[in-house]
Amino acid sequence: MSTRHRVVVIGAGFGGLRVVRGLEDADVDIVVVDAHNFHTFQPLLYQVATAGLDTDDIAYPIRGIFRRQKNATVRVAAVTAIDLERRTVTTTRGEPLVFDTLVGAAGTVSHDFGIPGVTDHTLPLKSVADAVTIRDHVLTTFERATFDDTVGHDLDVVVCGGGPTGVEMAGGLTELYDRVLRKDYPSLPVAAARITLVEAVDQVLSTFDESLGARAEHTLRERGVDVITGVPIAGVDDGVVELDDGRRIEAGTIVWAAGVRAAPVAEMLGVELGKAGRIVVGGDLSVPGHPNVFAIGDIAVDPERPLPQVAQPAIQGGKHVARQIERRLAGERTETFEYTDKGSMATIGRNQAVAELPGGLKLSGPIGWLAWLGLHLVYLMGFRNRLNVLVNWTWNYLTYDRASRLLAPSDD
Amino acid sequence: MSTRHRVVVIGAGFGGLRVVRGLEDADVDIVVVDAHNFHTFQPLLYQVATAGLDTDDIAYPIRGIFRRQKNATVRVAAVTAIDLERRTVTTTRGEPLVFDTLVGAAGTVSHDFGIPGVTDHTLPLKSVADAVTIRDHVLTTFERATFDDTVGHDLDVVVCGGGPTGVEMAGGLTELYDRVLRKDYPSLPVAAARITLVEAVDQVLSTFDESLGARAEHTLRERGVDVITGVPIAGVDDGVVELDDGRRIEAGTIVWAAGVRAAPVAEMLGVELGKAGRIVVGGDLSVPGHPNVFAIGDIAVDPERPLPQVAQPAIQGGKHVARQIERRLAGERTETFEYTDKGSMATIGRNQAVAELPGGLKLSGPIGWLAWLGLHLVYLMGFRNRLNVLVNWTWNYLTYDRASRLLAPSDD
Repeated sequence: MSTRHRVVVIGAGFGGLRVVRGLEDADVDIVVVDAHNFHTFQPLLYQVATAGLDTDDIAYPIRGIFRRQKNATVRVAAVTAIDLERRTVTTTRGEPLVFDTLVGAAGTVSHDFGIPGVTDHTLPLKSVADAVTIRDHVLTTFERATFDDTVGHDLDVVVCGGGPTGVEMAGGLTELYDRVLRKDYPSLPVAAARITLVEAVDQVLSTFDESLGARAEHTLRERGVDVITGVPIAGVDDGVVELDDGRRIEAGTIVWAAGVRAAPVAEMLGVELGKAGRIVVGGDLSVPGHPNVFAIGDIAVDPERPLPQVAQPAIQGGKHVARQIERRLAGERTETFEYTDKGSMATIGRNQAVAELPGGLKLSGPIGWLAWLGLHLVYLMGFRNRLNVLVNWTWNYLTYDRASRLLAPSDD
Repeated sequence: MSTRHRVVVIGAGFGGLRVVRGLEDADVDIVVVDAHNFHTFQPLLYQVATAGLDTDDIAYPIRGIFRRQKNATVRVAAVTAIDLERRTVTTTRGEPLVFDTLVGAAGTVSHDFGIPGVTDHTLPLKSVADAVTIRDHVLTTFERATFDDTVGHDLDVVVCGGGPTGVEMAGGLTELYDRVLRKDYPSLPVAAARITLVEAVDQVLSTFDESLGARAEHTLRERGVDVITGVPIAGVDDGVVELDDGRRIEAGTIVWAAGVRAAPVAEMLGVELGKAGRIVVGGDLSVPGHPNVFAIGDIAVDPERPLPQVAQPAIQGGKHVARQIERRLAGERTETFEYTDKGSMATIGRNQAVAELPGGLKLSGPIGWLAWLGLHLVYLMGFRNRLNVLVNWTWNYLTYDRASRLLAPSDD
C-alpha cells in the first residue's frame, strides 16, 4: 500500500473529472469512484431521449479518460457509507477506501418534491439509462398504437418542468414527432398528438433573462408545444398530470424534469445540508470543520453565493479544488473560489436557441443555436465522440432523420 | 381493406429487405414482419461484441428504410403460427395477417447441436442483444476482477466455432484485450489472459480455400490466440469447455459461434425441412407444392444447390423472388434462381483479412483487409451509419482506442 496522500473523488461528472485532471502532477494517489464506468455528458441527455444521438455519443469510459494518468485509479462501484472520523468510504464492491482528502462530486438525482405519484408515474431524465428508457417508452407506445383502433392520448407527452432540460426535451420531442414519427407511422394521428410543457413559475427558463424566457416560450408555441406557466403540479397518476388549478392533462408519456436534489452521498457525510439536500461549503469549497473534505458542482452550495446547477460551476469548482489540495499539501492556506460566469444556453431544437453571455449579451434564434452547437462540441469528451456527434447532428439537420431508434423486442 | 395482392415478408434481414425493395413498383401491398424494429447488419455483430462499434452503427430502423415506399407497411411483432391453407400468419400483436404470397426470410438462430450445457453456459452471437450481452459480460468480468485477489481463468475466453464469426470474434477479442483492456486495467494480468478458438473440423474457415484457412489460423496464432482444430466439443459447464479428447478449458467467457439452425418460422410452415431445419425450396426458391410461398437466405436450402449462409445468397435470392412474384402476377412462369458467387471474406482484426474472389483470386493481409473494409462500408445501411462506422474504425485504427464500452451499473 502506498503511503502517499490519498485523494478519493466521488463522482466522475464534470467536476470530478476536473479534480482528477488538476492533480495530474501532484504527489498524491487519486481514486475516482463512480457507479458507472462512463462519464455522462449531461447537457445532451435529452438528445438521447429524443433519439437524436445514441448513448455512446454522450458517454465516455472513465478508464479510457484516466488511462495515461499514472496517479489515478478508477473504482466502478456505488458509495454506501462515509465515515469522516475514520476517513473511509465504503462501496458496494471491495474494501473500504481510506482517504486523506475527500471530494464529493456526485451531482444530483431526480426529486419529486413530495408531489404524489411522481415516482411511480413519470420518467425522470437524469442518467443515460433514463434517457434510453424515455426513448424506448415513446417508441414502444407508437408500436403498440399501430395495433389499437383508438389511440386516445397515448401519443401525447407532458414534460414537467420548464428549466433548460424541460425546454430542450419539449423542443426535441416536437422535432422527433414532426420530422420522424409522423413519417414512420403514417397510419397514426401523429399530427394530432399534443406535447405539453408545465412550469410552476411564471416563466420558462426562469434563471435566464425575462426576454429570453419569453423568446423560448414563443418558439416552443410556434413548434406546437402547449406551454403552461405559473401553475404548479398537484399530482401525477397513471397517464395523467393533475394541475393545481384543477386541470387534468392525459398523456401516454410523462417526463419529469421539474427538479433535482443532491445525490444520497451528501447525507452520508453527516454534515450540514442546505436546500434540496446540498452539502453546505465555505468560500474555499471545503466543508466547514473538515478542511480535508471538499464538495463541488450540483451536490454543493455556498449559501452566501449560490451558483446555478450547470456544468460551469462544477468544472471551475473542480479546477479550484485541485489547486487547493496542492496548496494544503504545500502547507499553504486555501483560497476563496472565484466563479467566472461564462453564460448560459438552452436550445429549442433545430435552428433555435437562447444564450445569455457575460456582459449582458443575449443571443437567440439561429445564431444562438450555432453558438450552442459549437460550445457543446468543444466540451464533448474526446475527438471521436465530437466527430460522431457532428455526423449525427449534420445528418439530422440535413435529412430530418433520426437513426437512434432501436428497440429491444418485446412480446407484450 | 385493400383487395390488392398481398405479400407478407417474414424477416427484415438482407433477403427480406431486397424482396420489399424489389416490389417497390409492383401492384401489391407488402407487409414486412419482424420481431425487431430494426435491420441488423449481421457481419459486424462481432464488432459490437468486442466494443469496436456501438449498436446503432450496425442497426437501422425498418420504418425509416421503407418510409418512402408507399406499398409497404411494417409490423413489429414475432410470428407465432402460419397456416398455408388459410393463408394466414399469426403474430404476437394484432390480427392475423392474410397473405396471397408469403416469403420466409427469417434467417437462423443459434444451435447447440445437442451438446450438453451450451444453452446454459455459453453466450451466442446472433443478435444485437447477444452482442451487447457479450460486451457487457466481458467488461463486467474485468470490473469484478479488480476486486478479486486471484483472477484464475476469469479473464480467459473460449470462442466455440472457427467459421467467419468465430474467427472474427477471436481476432476482435485480441485487439480489445491487447489495445484497450490491458491499458484500462493496469492492475490485472491481462497479458496472461488466454483466448482460445475451438473448431471441430481440421481447418478454420472451412468453407474457404485451404490456403486461406491456414493463413487465418497463422494470423490468429501470431496475435496470441490458441487455435484448436479437429477436436469437437463434448460439452460445456459453468466456466469450462470440455473437448472430445478429454481436455478441459476454463474461461470466464464462453462464446458460441459454432452453428445455427433455421429460425422457428421454418417449422411453422409444416413443409419439408432439410439439414438444420432449413426450408426445402425448388430451383425458383418457391416451396414445392406451394407456388405462392417462397423462402430465401439462411432459412432456405435448395438441396441440389446448397449455398453458404452469408449475405449474398439472401440478397440475390431476395431480388430473384421479387421478380418471380411480379412474373406470377403477370401470369408468367417462374425462373430458376441463378446465384452469382461474389466471393467470401473474413477479417482477423487490424490490417488482416482473407478474401476469396470469383475466378480463384485470393487476397490476404492488409489488401484483404482494405477490400473487406470497403465492401462492408458499401453494404452498410444508410449514409449516416456508413460515416459513423468510418469515423469509429478510423479512430480505432489510429488510436487503438475503443469507445463503445459503456456498462449499465450493477450492485452485485
